[in-house]
Amino acid sequence: MSKKAVVFQPRRTVEQVEEGTDLAPKFDERGLIAVVTTDATSGELLMQAYMNAEALSLTIQSGEAVYYSRSHQALWHKGKTSGLVQTVRELLLDDDQDCVWLKVDVAGGASCHVGYRSCFYRRVPVGEEYAAAQTESVVDMIFTDTEKVFDPKEVYGDAPNPTKL
Amino acid sequence: MSKKAVVFQPRRTVEQVEEGTDLAPKFDERGLIAVVTTDATSGELLMQAYMNAEALSLTIQSGEAVYYSRSHQALWHKGKTSGLVQTVRELLLDDDQDCVWLKVDVAGGASCHVGYRSCFYRRVPVGEEYAAAQTESVVDMIFTDTEKVFDPKEVYGDAPNPTKL
Repeated sequence: MSKKAVVFQPRRTVEQVEEGTDLAPKFDERGLIAVVTTDATSGELLMQAYMNAEALSLTIQSGEAVYYSRSHQALWHKGKTSGLVQTVRELLLDDDQDCVWLKVDVAGGASCHVGYRSCFYRRVPVGEEYAAAQTESVVDMIFTDTEKVFDPKEVYGDAPNPTKL
Repeated sequence: MSKKAVVFQPRRTVEQVEEGTDLAPKFDERGLIAVVTTDATSGELLMQAYMNAEALSLTIQSGEAVYYSRSHQALWHKGKTSGLVQTVRELLLDDDQDCVWLKVDVAGGASCHVGYRSCFYRRVPVGEEYAAAQTESVVDMIFTDTEKVFDPKEVYGDAPNPTKL
């Protein structure tokens, strides 16, 4: 891992932020920036999470995805427990620099703690399909992926489930 | 647009939320849920934004992306000004239902108010490339897209730039 510190630039003008090469990320009132993570090969969306300034610095330095867990209020080196480390192939910033896009390779091929390849394995009918659905008002989701890549119990054991109600 | 109301389910158990078909989204302390929007054809990441409950309902009913603008504190029917409406091909929820993935078709092919096809047109060197970069600590981003699809001045005129410093 590079020991070179990462310094973010102050946000001075819209042109600097949108059209320049300065890395001047916008952290929200919680000190966080949204991160979207896709599979570098398939392009599939794997997860959406957050980084604080330290997590973003560590990701740039190490080339491995480090997030900030809101539920644990701590840095979260993805894959440290499961072995499913995310190697960053590309890290992009959006126009106003309040969102990070990571294109990653995942060791093992799964990203979801429930055991599916992607966290997004259910879809909601919209528009005409929603209007045509038999149910009144209540929406039934439809599974798009039914095959788990791993058994969460084997990988995580008795660790508490990260999903909060 | 379907006049059928959309009712979200209460979040009762982890199993219900993760393994069931109930639509039981988790809105954060601001009443918002994160949304990731990709191009249904190319798979490219177009934008990351937020919805409140009303925006999510309207999106499901209409089949067009409606977000909640944090800066304007108002519903945001994407493309209403620019004509670049997003038609939703697929709407997915993640495992713990605190993130929405929209796969959309965009009229006109551009999603970024700066004029690029995608909001993500600059990348940050990470890991070894970061370590090898000449600059000390300060990060210079690299443009991955240099061609604008439209001229923002023609499309938006004198409307205020949405980017906040």
